[in-house]
Amino acid sequence: MQPSNTEVGAGTMNPATFLRVLGPEPWNVAYVEPSIRPDDSRYGDNPNRLQRHTQFQVILKPDPGNSQELYLGSLVALGIDIQAHDVRFVEDNWESPVLGAWGLGWEVWMDGMEITQFTYFQQAGSMSLSPVSVEITYGLERILMAVQGVNHFKNIQYSPGITYGEMFLENEKEMSKYYLDSATIDRVQLEFDLFESEAKALLQKELAIPAYDYVLKASHAFNILDARGAIGVTERARFFGRMRRLARECAQLWVKTRENLNYPLGVWTPLSFSEPSGEASELIEKILTPQTFVLEIGSEELPSQDVSSSVKQLEEAIEGCLKAQRLKYGCISVFGTPRRIVVIVEGLAPVQDEMEKEIRGPPCKAAFDDKGLPTKALEGFCRKNGIPQDSLVTRVEGKTEFVFATVKEQCRQAIEVLSESLPSVMKQISFPKAMRWNSEVSYSRPIRWILAIYGGVVVPFSFAGVASGRSTHVLRTAVSRIVEVSKAEDYLGCIKEAGITMCIKERKESIWTRSSALAGNVGGRLPDVAISGLLDEVANLVEAPNPLLGSFDASFLALPAEILTTVMRKHQRYFPVEDPKTEELLPAFITVANGNIDEALVRKGNEAVLRARYEDAKFFYQSDISKPLLDFRPQLKGILFQEKLGTMLDKSIRVEKMVEKLGELLELDSENMEVAYCAAPLAYADLATTVVMEFTSLAGIMGKHYALRQGHSQMVAEAIFESVLPRNAGDIIPTSDPGILLAIADRLDSLVGLFKVGCQPSASADPFGLRRSAYGLVQALVENKKSCNLLKALEIAESVQPSSLAASNIDEVFLFVKRRLEQLLIDQGSNIEIVRSIISERGNDPWLASISVKQLEELIKGEIVKKVVTAYSRPTRIARPESIDLSWEVDTNLFQQAEENTLWIAYNKVASQIDPGTSLDCFFQASEELVEPLDKYFSKVFVLVDDENLKKNRLALMHKIAELPKGIVNFSFLPGF
Amino acid sequence: MQPSNTEVGAGTMNPATFLRVLGPEPWNVAYVEPSIRPDDSRYGDNPNRLQRHTQFQVILKPDPGNSQELYLGSLVALGIDIQAHDVRFVEDNWESPVLGAWGLGWEVWMDGMEITQFTYFQQAGSMSLSPVSVEITYGLERILMAVQGVNHFKNIQYSPGITYGEMFLENEKEMSKYYLDSATIDRVQLEFDLFESEAKALLQKELAIPAYDYVLKASHAFNILDARGAIGVTERARFFGRMRRLARECAQLWVKTRENLNYPLGVWTPLSFSEPSGEASELIEKILTPQTFVLEIGSEELPSQDVSSSVKQLEEAIEGCLKAQRLKYGCISVFGTPRRIVVIVEGLAPVQDEMEKEIRGPPCKAAFDDKGLPTKALEGFCRKNGIPQDSLVTRVEGKTEFVFATVKEQCRQAIEVLSESLPSVMKQISFPKAMRWNSEVSYSRPIRWILAIYGGVVVPFSFAGVASGRSTHVLRTAVSRIVEVSKAEDYLGCIKEAGITMCIKERKESIWTRSSALAGNVGGRLPDVAISGLLDEVANLVEAPNPLLGSFDASFLALPAEILTTVMRKHQRYFPVEDPKTEELLPAFITVANGNIDEALVRKGNEAVLRARYEDAKFFYQSDISKPLLDFRPQLKGILFQEKLGTMLDKSIRVEKMVEKLGELLELDSENMEVAYCAAPLAYADLATTVVMEFTSLAGIMGKHYALRQGHSQMVAEAIFESVLPRNAGDIIPTSDPGILLAIADRLDSLVGLFKVGCQPSASADPFGLRRSAYGLVQALVENKKSCNLLKALEIAESVQPSSLAASNIDEVFLFVKRRLEQLLIDQGSNIEIVRSIISERGNDPWLASISVKQLEELIKGEIVKKVVTAYSRPTRIARPESIDLSWEVDTNLFQQAEENTLWIAYNKVASQIDPGTSLDCFFQASEELVEPLDKYFSKVFVLVDDENLKKNRLALMHKIAELPKGIVNFSFLPGF
Repeated sequence: MQPSNTEVGAGTMNPATFLRVLGPEPWNVAYVEPSIRPDDSRYGDNPNRLQRHTQFQVILKPDPGNSQELYLGSLVALGIDIQAHDVRFVEDNWESPVLGAWGLGWEVWMDGMEITQFTYFQQAGSMSLSPVSVEITYGLERILMAVQGVNHFKNIQYSPGITYGEMFLENEKEMSKYYLDSATIDRVQLEFDLFESEAKALLQKELAIPAYDYVLKASHAFNILDARGAIGVTERARFFGRMRRLARECAQLWVKTRENLNYPLGVWTPLSFSEPSGEASELIEKILTPQTFVLEIGSEELPSQDVSSSVKQLEEAIEGCLKAQRLKYGCISVFGTPRRIVVIVEGLAPVQDEMEKEIRGPPCKAAFDDKGLPTKALEGFCRKNGIPQDSLVTRVEGKTEFVFATVKEQCRQAIEVLSESLPSVMKQISFPKAMRWNSEVSYSRPIRWILAIYGGVVVPFSFAGVASGRSTHVLRTAVSRIVEVSKAEDYLGCIKEAGITMCIKERKESIWTRSSALAGNVGGRLPDVAISGLLDEVANLVEAPNPLLGSFDASFLALPAEILTTVMRKHQRYFPVEDPKTEELLPAFITVANGNIDEALVRKGNEAVLRARYEDAKFFYQSDISKPLLDFRPQLKGILFQEKLGTMLDKSIRVEKMVEKLGELLELDSENMEVAYCAAPLAYADLATTVVMEFTSLAGIMGKHYALRQGHSQMVAEAIFESVLPRNAGDIIPTSDPGILLAIADRLDSLVGLFKVGCQPSASADPFGLRRSAYGLVQALVENKKSCNLLKALEIAESVQPSSLAASNIDEVFLFVKRRLEQLLIDQGSNIEIVRSIISERGNDPWLASISVKQLEELIKGEIVKKVVTAYSRPTRIARPESIDLSWEVDTNLFQQAEENTLWIAYNKVASQIDPGTSLDCFFQASEELVEPLDKYFSKVFVLVDDENLKKNRLALMHKIAELPKGIVNFSFLPGF
Repeated sequence: MQPSNTEVGAGTMNPATFLRVLGPEPWNVAYVEPSIRPDDSRYGDNPNRLQRHTQFQVILKPDPGNSQELYLGSLVALGIDIQAHDVRFVEDNWESPVLGAWGLGWEVWMDGMEITQFTYFQQAGSMSLSPVSVEITYGLERILMAVQGVNHFKNIQYSPGITYGEMFLENEKEMSKYYLDSATIDRVQLEFDLFESEAKALLQKELAIPAYDYVLKASHAFNILDARGAIGVTERARFFGRMRRLARECAQLWVKTRENLNYPLGVWTPLSFSEPSGEASELIEKILTPQTFVLEIGSEELPSQDVSSSVKQLEEAIEGCLKAQRLKYGCISVFGTPRRIVVIVEGLAPVQDEMEKEIRGPPCKAAFDDKGLPTKALEGFCRKNGIPQDSLVTRVEGKTEFVFATVKEQCRQAIEVLSESLPSVMKQISFPKAMRWNSEVSYSRPIRWILAIYGGVVVPFSFAGVASGRSTHVLRTAVSRIVEVSKAEDYLGCIKEAGITMCIKERKESIWTRSSALAGNVGGRLPDVAISGLLDEVANLVEAPNPLLGSFDASFLALPAEILTTVMRKHQRYFPVEDPKTEELLPAFITVANGNIDEALVRKGNEAVLRARYEDAKFFYQSDISKPLLDFRPQLKGILFQEKLGTMLDKSIRVEKMVEKLGELLELDSENMEVAYCAAPLAYADLATTVVMEFTSLAGIMGKHYALRQGHSQMVAEAIFESVLPRNAGDIIPTSDPGILLAIADRLDSLVGLFKVGCQPSASADPFGLRRSAYGLVQALVENKKSCNLLKALEIAESVQPSSLAASNIDEVFLFVKRRLEQLLIDQGSNIEIVRSIISERGNDPWLASISVKQLEELIKGEIVKKVVTAYSRPTRIARPESIDLSWEVDTNLFQQAEENTLWIAYNKVASQIDPGTSLDCFFQASEELVEPLDKYFSKVFVLVDDENLKKNRLALMHKIAELPKGIVNFSFLPGF
């Protein structure tokens, strides 16, 4: 096929992929796709990032079953020595928000450089795909650079006598200038709207192909706007939604069209789910003694976290199965590497344990005749179950007497039982993100082989189209990549011999020890913080870890360390190396290769990759520091926050306006207020810096860095940083007063504003992350022990919203925030009923609510709560709102009994001791004094008398007492009320 | 290279062609280009026309000198038997109004089907190209169909197991529906404007590449509008202008950019114009007797009309050269075929004729001393010129006496002289459209060999990089394609032996005879009308004519014959075959192949092509006849006439409004007026029919056809047809009164309207063809002998123009039309002075002016004109406007001499006989009576006397006489006045 004739960001968007992966028709296609990504514009400066790069796109539908091998073969055909290079499949969950598509697979890395994307499509056009297509997307420039051994795309030999640079450098320069600097935002926005409208009109006319063409055009227009920095994080979701809706409709229409055409290319039939088992060819021998059993599920490369979780699940599932199947066993051990999860059961019994079981026969009436002799029915029962008649007993069950017999369950061969059970053992293993490939069976990545040996015999079964056997796959670069294992006991030996370190602990130790030694060679060490988590991940990315030390140009150390480590850890999974004394970074890194590669080659490759990444970061950083941070603020005008709420600049101005009143509310002192005033206008400015555009995780961090760099105080810088906290669940929260103030102001503004314009979260979607915003808001207050009147804070936020927006809705927001508070307190381990009883009354001050919950939790352990709750329950039940007029006052003259007066006096005493801020301890202690008077009162006084005046007076007192917990605790949520 | 990533109509538009052919850098490139032509949308129904077809584009820069051979080799490589097929290079002057580009070359036809375009680019971006690039554009679908022997693109085997139809048919259907029916015109128009604005903005920022990208987008938007029928013929020019301007600026900017980059791909140096001559390796022998000389200029295929014209020029140039060079010669004959022009000179003398020449020596004073003896100066003069002193003579020249001598010119060898002169002989040959290919030398198509033999010896010289020799190229399909000719006398024999018919007459006769015989085989004959012109053309398209009879499905005869013959003659150069009795078409055609091809194969190919063309025509025709002609009229709303003048519907309404008054003016009777009223609303409707959209030359013809088909009268149908007449120079003109009326109304409207909006022709450009309009207008009046008051007619046209337009400008239009009338009368053979003298007075009525011119031409042969003119000249000269007050009247009381009275009486008699419609005969006869009285008057009366009253009275009479020819003839244009 030929490339798309309108700009696409990737070969995936070409209709030859997007439309053709839909529906049941087989489709194998390959084409070159010059892919346009305005965001990747670098004026031709970056060694391997281009706004137009060339993909070679392959679709295999259905999955042929050996696509990874086919792929590696294609690399060899391109002249790549896959033994010498470090070629790895690194987890990648691919998703296209525009196409409503996702799939699982990998980035293929060669010496740390991504050269290919490899994906099993699960969904496209928001539709589930069957069959699944394999997508292989080669990055041709990068492969060429590797094959030709050049460091910059410019130097690729494009054809004899002409370089890539001579062909395309000017194009890169000019198109970069267009996308980054010169595109006319208004015009491109108008183009987007036109393209969208045309696509809609065509969908109405049932023309999927031209409609999809316009979706592509709209998408490109969006990409230009994005590269120009004209789209805010929040607005982006809306754009994606518009495009996704269109793409979905195109896909649905296309599927319908193909159906109407009766599928000209044929129909693929999925593998049936109920596969025949026990098809292995070996004869099942009689085994008489316990044997070792090994099960290895071999798959394409698993994501790091899936290795650990699936190993654990496999252990539990096997143990459960063996127990259920009455198979005695010795020690169970499990292992996992990227390509296999393994369970080894030692001393597994050859046959099931014996087991007796009682079975019920016919009722006695039917079993015996009048003479007490067995009937034909009874004889039949005995014959069927092989029971001698003398072993029968009788017993009443319900109201009938039945015949019962005890039978022995058959003891089946272990191998037979396993053969039947292992498919369901495997089916039990689940993953946060699972995929299908050749059937309805799902797993983390496609299963390609199953080794199952009991003693020396294969346990025959099949799963997801793979028959079990005695073969295992070792390293892809091994001379013999498939090894036969003759006995289960030999398994670990074979694996070890193949150079694979089976045990994760060993892998981690080996990586740690060897990496530390390498760091030592350059006088450095691995920084603990940087390693945590990463070591676990890396250990699950390789089977034969091989750490290598690489270096980068020391000049890059001029960049902020956060940028350098972000690139190393997140993007490249490299360990940084630091100076043990200064704790500053050294110009070195450690990468962990897999197996015995050519170290010099792989080092060189990884160094080139890191250099390109740092060039990129430097490009951004240099452009950022060319002007003061505050100068980026006006650029926030180009970043939409939300259509009706304006740009990020508008939001920034709103937050700035809130500082004064919110500061009063939070009772900041004047020094902190000054810091807040100074930090507020700078708080969002870094969003417009190019570093943050590229490394969004550095928002706040870069703001702080740039602020410090140009001489702002540490406190101001800190407040800028803290204004973005917490960024996600488990993140740190702001701790300085100005930081708290700005963080809260940001979230209050988002909540009030977005609720007003109808962007509140729904049951299934929260595109603007408002749950997290509200949660972060209350978290900041609670954890910093900051008292705050939430309703007032929301009013402040409301006062700065665009005047055009609808009437007040802060009650709704308030309710929403209280729910998050409830969630927070429950997350902190509190009981839900206690939490609700407090929030109902004190939710307006999260901090007060949280300590109240703690207090109530303590109190509830003693007797007092129960007593007091019981005491309040009767007045509350009697003085129901519907029978009370709130204007009634207690008239002591109408008291007729002494108990009335005693209670009145007790009431007044309690009432004088409590107020809306009263601690729970205080409240309960005070309330205890009501217990006795109330008891006595109810034993003597009848409230609901016929005399209306009397009744009113008594109800008024009951009401007053019932009102006492108001503002403190709502007992109705507590049990026993 | 990869295809463009935005839609292009052809590979030429890809920047890898358009930008790279500019400037001096060499560039060889090849790429596939899926080309999008909305206009070619056929819902997938047409066998070989698709809205997206696949080109394979090749650029060779500079011309390698053998690109035709390389191309034919590539066909062989594709598996095409070029001996069996009829592969021909058919003249094509390629032009892209959008790109400001043009070039000369060919369509390559295989069995009548265009499979490739082959062009030598002369200009791009409105800039002259150096070096010239060769562009070869393969039509892959058509080539595949031919190679695979399938009849419809659907059936092409695209790859194993999948057909082209299975891949792309749905795409064709849906995209066709989009382009033809569903594109939203307003939106696409808005897109065009956006793209144009963005391109302009980018040009200002000096970004040629992204700007050009937007030019491509604009061009595609235009193409969609065009396919939707939203652009009128006149408006098109404006759109093209907008795009061309942008493309030119992109090109200029790109050239500047490459220069600034210092031409990274190197710089090509053109061949120097002054080439060394006489480099042939053969020794020049002494030839003693007259010999035959042959010169053959071998080139790539010449356009048909260039063959005849260049042969004639060659004959004149050779003859001129031989005479100038004093070379005696016998018979000269010339020949031309598509690949060669030849001159043969028999009996050419071996040496120049002798010639004597007188040369001047020193003045006698200096030549001889006092004693009359020769001085040193004279001796030197004699020595230098080899003259004996006794042969000197002396003669006075000017005022000095000089010495003179007679010397003999040297007699040089013919071969030497020819060697020097032939380059300039060749340079003399010029063409209406000439091209460059490897130097500044230009010719119709590249010269590839030169045969120049005198007797048995090569005349050595070189021209445009080609050295003369004794080789000629015969048919491309010959076993030995190059033949050595040993003697000039053998040349014609060699050519004949190679199967080439050298003489055009013979070729024509052979074609005519054999074609007529073939037609006879199916009971038909060649229609004379259809053959005229076409036979001349076809005879110059082949060197070895080979007529073949083909047939087409008789069902196509249901289409109007005009469509069928238009396709055959204009598109395919086929001869139609008609039934000699009915004169109706038979389902057969004759094509003339070149050389001994495989007749069955070539017939089949040609039949397939014609079928596809007829399918296409049928597609259009069917869709047209699905509704009445009048129903197409509203669609004229979608065709712009001119931005300010509205759509073609607006124009049609204006013309309709003019019918009544213009009918009065032309004095139509009521029957004709009724026809005009009925035809007026139908007159432009056929412009919206798809047949006319495709075959623009059928405008009017189809209107007539559709009108008749639905039952309108013959007269109405005729008027519709005639409204478009004359369509071009030499075309027929309307003859029926209603037809004349509509034709004139159309042109009056165009003239008045377009002048108003500033679209009048300039010296260099007449984009709306207004010269032709005005010429047609007066032609219709003159040839139909229709009297018409032009100014009144223009007023009628003005009264229907949009009211928003500026004040009256009909004087300007009137002047313009009178100039065309002048041109028409001169074209009819009249003398310019006579024409001007009449038009000056009677231009307002073209018919009257034309007969007056004829009359005057007759009269001028006699004596009367001279006499009368002379007579009028004196009063006119005396009564100059500046000395006359027009209010003066003649007062007979002031007459003092008898001659005054006599003249006054004569004047009154003449004046009473003439009026503005008076014939010239009448005028001159009457005026003759003034001759004698005037003569006498001037002999006796002195006009400019001192007495003011007397003088005034006499001048008044002179003035009255001078005014007599007013409205009849203006003598001031005639000689002798």
